Amino acid sequence: MPDDRPADEAEPPAPKTEDGGSSLRAGVDLRRVGINPDFWYPVAVARKVRKGRTLAAVFAGERIALFRGESGTVHALEDRCAHRQVPLSMGVVEGETLRCCYHAWAYRGNGRISQIPYLSKETGRPPRGVRAYPVREAYGLVFVFPGDPGKAADTPFPELPALGSAGHRTMTFSRLVRCHYSFMHENLLDMNHQFLHRRILGRIRPELLEHRSTPVSVEARYLFTHTGGKRNRGAGFLAAEGIGGKDSADVMTIRTEYPYQTLELVPEDARAPSFSLWAAYVPKDAEQRTSHAYGLLTIAKPPVPGALHLAWPVIRRFTERVFAQDRMAVEAEQKAWEEQGEDWNHEVFPLILDVRKLLRVNGVPLRPVPRRTESVSPPHPPATSAAPVDERRPADPDAPARP
Amino acid sequence: MPDDRPADEAEPPAPKTEDGGSSLRAGVDLRRVGINPDFWYPVAVARKVRKGRTLAAVFAGERIALFRGESGTVHALEDRCAHRQVPLSMGVVEGETLRCCYHAWAYRGNGRISQIPYLSKETGRPPRGVRAYPVREAYGLVFVFPGDPGKAADTPFPELPALGSAGHRTMTFSRLVRCHYSFMHENLLDMNHQFLHRRILGRIRPELLEHRSTPVSVEARYLFTHTGGKRNRGAGFLAAEGIGGKDSADVMTIRTEYPYQTLELVPEDARAPSFSLWAAYVPKDAEQRTSHAYGLLTIAKPPVPGALHLAWPVIRRFTERVFAQDRMAVEAEQKAWEEQGEDWNHEVFPLILDVRKLLRVNGVPLRPVPRRTESVSPPHPPATSAAPVDERRPADPDAPARP
Amino acid sequence: MPDDRPADEAEPPAPKTEDGGSSLRAGVDLRRVGINPDFWYPVAVARKVRKGRTLAAVFAGERIALFRGESGTVHALEDRCAHRQVPLSMGVVEGETLRCCYHAWAYRGNGRISQIPYLSKETGRPPRGVRAYPVREAYGLVFVFPGDPGKAADTPFPELPALGSAGHRTMTFSRLVRCHYSFMHENLLDMNHQFLHRRILGRIRPELLEHRSTPVSVEARYLFTHTGGKRNRGAGFLAAEGIGGKDSADVMTIRTEYPYQTLELVPEDARAPSFSLWAAYVPKDAEQRTSHAYGLLTIAKPPVPGALHLAWPVIRRFTERVFAQDRMAVEAEQKAWEEQGEDWNHEVFPLILDVRKLLRVNGVPLRPVPRRTESVSPPHPPATSAAPVDERRPADPDAPARP
Repeated sequence: MPDDRPADEAEPPAPKTEDGGSSLRAGVDLRRVGINPDFWYPVAVARKVRKGRTLAAVFAGERIALFRGESGTVHALEDRCAHRQVPLSMGVVEGETLRCCYHAWAYRGNGRISQIPYLSKETGRPPRGVRAYPVREAYGLVFVFPGDPGKAADTPFPELPALGSAGHRTMTFSRLVRCHYSFMHENLLDMNHQFLHRRILGRIRPELLEHRSTPVSVEARYLFTHTGGKRNRGAGFLAAEGIGGKDSADVMTIRTEYPYQTLELVPEDARAPSFSLWAAYVPKDAEQRTSHAYGLLTIAKPPVPGALHLAWPVIRRFTERVFAQDRMAVEAEQKAWEEQGEDWNHEVFPLILDVRKLLRVNGVPLRPVPRRTESVSPPHPPATSAAPVDERRPADPDAPARP
Repeated sequence: MPDDRPADEAEPPAPKTEDGGSSLRAGVDLRRVGINPDFWYPVAVARKVRKGRTLAAVFAGERIALFRGESGTVHALEDRCAHRQVPLSMGVVEGETLRCCYHAWAYRGNGRISQIPYLSKETGRPPRGVRAYPVREAYGLVFVFPGDPGKAADTPFPELPALGSAGHRTMTFSRLVRCHYSFMHENLLDMNHQFLHRRILGRIRPELLEHRSTPVSVEARYLFTHTGGKRNRGAGFLAAEGIGGKDSADVMTIRTEYPYQTLELVPEDARAPSFSLWAAYVPKDAEQRTSHAYGLLTIAKPPVPGALHLAWPVIRRFTERVFAQDRMAVEAEQKAWEEQGEDWNHEVFPLILDVRKLLRVNGVPLRPVPRRTESVSPPHPPATSAAPVDERRPADPDAPARP
Repeated sequence: MPDDRPADEAEPPAPKTEDGGSSLRAGVDLRRVGINPDFWYPVAVARKVRKGRTLAAVFAGERIALFRGESGTVHALEDRCAHRQVPLSMGVVEGETLRCCYHAWAYRGNGRISQIPYLSKETGRPPRGVRAYPVREAYGLVFVFPGDPGKAADTPFPELPALGSAGHRTMTFSRLVRCHYSFMHENLLDMNHQFLHRRILGRIRPELLEHRSTPVSVEARYLFTHTGGKRNRGAGFLAAEGIGGKDSADVMTIRTEYPYQTLELVPEDARAPSFSLWAAYVPKDAEQRTSHAYGLLTIAKPPVPGALHLAWPVIRRFTERVFAQDRMAVEAEQKAWEEQGEDWNHEVFPLILDVRKLLRVNGVPLRPVPRRTESVSPPHPPATSAAPVDERRPADPDAPARP
């Protein structure tokens, strides 16, 4: 920005005008928009859910008890016993059931209670069970469908064909980031932030070649030119420098396709990507101010056998360092948002305005508090007129409650 | 619960209907019911209040300064200096008075100020003092009466005759538990939770023989049958296994008599209990989401001289392990309650419904914030028309306050 | 206070009557009165702001990025980038400008943006910059003027002539204290708190000789008589005992002159102070419940050359110990205030009532949340009718945002 540029005396825009005032969620602070639960979200690295064991997972404040039965199948239940609300993830796996650690109530994978050891005619009628989530295990991750279970079957599951290919190898990332998921999308799409990585990547001049937006996606293509400074070996390898020793212009394509994000790097003179990244940012707390970032980095094997294997630790160290810098920035943004009490971002880069709108329009209102969910699923049975357990008990509070 | 049991389609009962809607506190979440302060509550282990020293204690958010005068008597004052609110427990004991560490104001055991070193005619009139609590020292504990001091003399003090007996020895417990006191009562009364202790006690089949409820008590008798698994040596000793080497059915009697709780174990073929436990759960914070559990475990000495002495460390380790498991469960319940924002418990065991009603009916509303208590007690003198100190000072805020 | 003193049955005064009900801020809890920002406040020790580096400072919740340009001049900006709110104190100094670490926006010392590297015709119009604070470096501290910048030039800067004198040496203090600044003023002015320091100072009998109040100042003169007990060597040195070996009555003058505080000790038979202290308590958080205490302790050099140099570590240790005790007391007061929810102080010492009034009358209302400040300063340009950046973008939220 040259110093003689005409001064802009205007106040920065309020977020409510960003979408033109007509959107469903215009006026809503982007950092208060909940992620849409009607998608498949990773909630755990698959090998952490061991056979016959539980794992406590979470989606946007909803606690989820994962357990892998003796058959090898992973199940996902609401993480509370219907009796006294103790987390089922503290329980014990028996075959394909999960038994609460406290009074030993047992649950099936569909959330129905299969046994209460001490239940007799004298005792009250028990609840039916807890909510169960549709689960799928793929790409080394456990995915659940936290939204309407009726939509699970028809909702596209992420397709990552390179992951199964013999010519590629995949590195898995699983990291907590203390920010709203939207900051992550903006971070990756706005490649003008290479200054942040100057100590690792050297001086990079990113040039936006084009960007395209649809109601559910924003895609940007950049030309990356290395203009000086020392570049980390891991970066070099990922830019396929490891093969030809070249050092220059690569094309980077970043795409948010709600709710996921991808990145592909095609080196100069190459046709296929030297690597690609698939990422999902899964809100952890109910206010969605913390996210769990899951990443799958798929790297094309170079012609030299074993070269990728040897470079693996270098690549991991490189990506961890880059991620640590990005995390520092997005967590600083989240902290500033919390202190300022609202979104003061003043964006000047059009495609970031696009992705902000996309995330707002495709999101959902934040739920203020966890709802009570008592019935099993799917499907949700309608409530009948049967009297609840406690209502059938004597009602005189001053008399002994039971003779 | 057999799988073919007719499905219960009903929603679980809302807490407000549990007492039939006519109780004083029907509709109040049990976890928001304050403990009744008009009882004697332990607030410290007596030997921790050393002669000439202070100890900071607390009852439901009310900070209490205990101090033991040179005579050996323990006094209990509101833990704030009437002057600048610095805790008196930071002060210095002089004879039977307590001197604030800051400006050296001195207090008697009845809360009245006995000296302000620098008070002159020019200075304003000082306050009279702070609140004093009725105190009793017994069973190795310091008890205070946090409620209406006029009721202290007529309120029964816990009677534990076995504690003085030559045939018994007592183990004292004092532990913080991060839960509402009600969870502790439910935990002990519902002996179906032996699954929680399976690694320590082996497989236990508890059978409820009978239970009796009155407006102020709930008592349950269980037959405990050991059906397999290795049993901890401490457990064996407490069940008097140490005497006859037997291994089986004991009768366990648990009783909540508001606000205390007791447990007695009578081994098979025995007439007297092999051990008994007296417990009080004293709320710590004003919201009563944390309790201090005081326990007195009284164990009958076996015929072999010295056997109990030898077994003492084993018994303590055993009880600590059992307590750690119970604490894990009740703290998980409290945490779930805080996340859910209300009591979702769905109880099916009638005597637990009874104790829930008992705790609700005998409790009091939670006080939202600490009240200001300025006068000494007992008795509380009525306020007169004498003008407060500062009102007699010059009132012109713009003039120099003092010539 | 003799025991037969007539009982005061009255309730202690409510804070709202302390100023007679006619003051601007009568009725306001003193601990909720904000410090007046229209003064010069130290926010950092100068040598911590190194050339070419930044330092994150704060005034009452306003984050301030200090940076020292290559010229050696210190600049103070609002600590947020106008773009994405990342703290500028995480940025990089280039000459006399500060570049944000994230997307490399650069700012001048007056808060104006000097460059946005990737700005093109296609991008939106950027904001002008962020707020800049008037800065002065003096006495080894960096001062800013956090209030109305138009008042900075005419507001007296603290004058400390002894600091430049060859006959004195100055010790700098910089410590966080977790309390409202008012507790610090009351602590130092009420010298009846010597009981707090009995282990360091021995038994001191403070006698108030006189006190004088104006609308902006309270001054008290005490005669300090040492009546027994061992006195710390550092205390002795400061009381000039190191020179003559005397041990007794000194005159201590303490003065609050809004918003600063000073203390001077003139030993018996001496004419000039043996030491003097200048202090400022700078609120850290927006609620002003934490303060940063900056102190300059200026000590007259004794006739023996090098004696002060040798005593320096002893004096520092002594002052740190005294300060630690004061901090314990004032932090206990703040904690009590937070638990009690309001100011229960019951003051009996007239000059403390004066300083309480002074702090209330000269203070300002607390700002509930940080305000958005977007324009540069000084001066604040009026907003014009130019449309904000984002409003000029296409407004149809359902259409692709950009073709």
